[in-house]
Amino acid sequence: MGKLKVLFHVNELERWQRTLLNVINFVKDVGQENADIEVVANGAAVSAYSDKCQIAGGLGETSTSCGKANGELYEEMNKLAQMGIRFVACRNALRMHSLDENMLSPFITVVPAGITEIAKKQAEGYAYIKA
Amino acid sequence: MGKLKVLFHVNELERWQRTLLNVINFVKDVGQENADIEVVANGAAVSAYSDKCQIAGGLGETSTSCGKANGELYEEMNKLAQMGIRFVACRNALRMHSLDENMLSPFITVVPAGITEIAKKQAEGYAYIKA
Amino acid sequence: MGKLKVLFHVNELERWQRTLLNVINFVKDVGQENADIEVVANGAAVSAYSDKCQIAGGLGETSTSCGKANGELYEEMNKLAQMGIRFVACRNALRMHSLDENMLSPFITVVPAGITEIAKKQAEGYAYIKA
Repeated sequence: MGKLKVLFHVNELERWQRTLLNVINFVKDVGQENADIEVVANGAAVSAYSDKCQIAGGLGETSTSCGKANGELYEEMNKLAQMGIRFVACRNALRMHSLDENMLSPFITVVPAGITEIAKKQAEGYAYIKA
Repeated sequence: MGKLKVLFHVNELERWQRTLLNVINFVKDVGQENADIEVVANGAAVSAYSDKCQIAGGLGETSTSCGKANGELYEEMNKLAQMGIRFVACRNALRMHSLDENMLSPFITVVPAGITEIAKKQAEGYAYIKA
Repeated sequence: MGKLKVLFHVNELERWQRTLLNVINFVKDVGQENADIEVVANGAAVSAYSDKCQIAGGLGETSTSCGKANGELYEEMNKLAQMGIRFVACRNALRMHSLDENMLSPFITVVPAGITEIAKKQAEGYAYIKA
């Protein structure tokens, strides 16, 4: 039946861990070759794309607001990106959170508006999942 | 490729600001003439359709539970409605929150059940986005 | 136009009440014979499938973290299951929350990965709703 196409939408920083766990479990279940996965971050979730995210504290109620300490979250994304999972950032959200898109890791793709990307992908047959 | 059809689902009062910001950024990105947008509110989110929403305090943990003070949120909706964005309220939710649907602004459409509306719109090809 | 197919995704314990209310209102609105409903739980939400869930306290900030006290939530699910609504649990989530799937009520179906189930159902034309 071809690849299972899934778009994960994450718009809160504290939902990243859950999102990545969902991605990992999905890939394990169907096999990497059968999964076509894109993760679109907008809102506060884009902060996880910055390595400054690891300096927690001011980001949320707990010190684990980025999900994982010391860049672990970022490392997991990087590993998943090597496996073909696409990570997308909303430019509006990056600006709103004063993040310089030129400083982002090369595995992250920036789109003008995250919502447009999500809408287009669903029109292309991607399932939508909000973590 | 025709208009991009998007349905925004909002069921929490504190997610209205985010939802409207998403709507605005989406319209800016694709152009008003290319966007077909409906916002469906159920649950506690319907309270934002009432002008009493501005009298915050008891609505949430903070005084900004309606997102914006003094009717700003409502004003933004009104502006977007003039641009063709449709705002829909779930009748079940209105009743549950003791809101009289005859007191709502004319730009708001009431449907018997928000979930039915969301299901039907997706069946018609609308992308689903939860803010 | 055939049955309206809807998949409800619940991944937080405190969203069960809202989810079941949505299901009930939807069925009331379109009629049981016109609704094809599946509820997929992953993450912490799977705990509601256990009868231990009623022993609240440690589960969240409030004692109502399971939504309803004394098995009311479970009873409602059971009633809905009798009406043909399917309840699905993610095996990864069950393991993560140390829940024995052999102890679950017979009306609950366990799938290897909740995300795969959600993706497949959307590919089959189910609308996605996140409560």
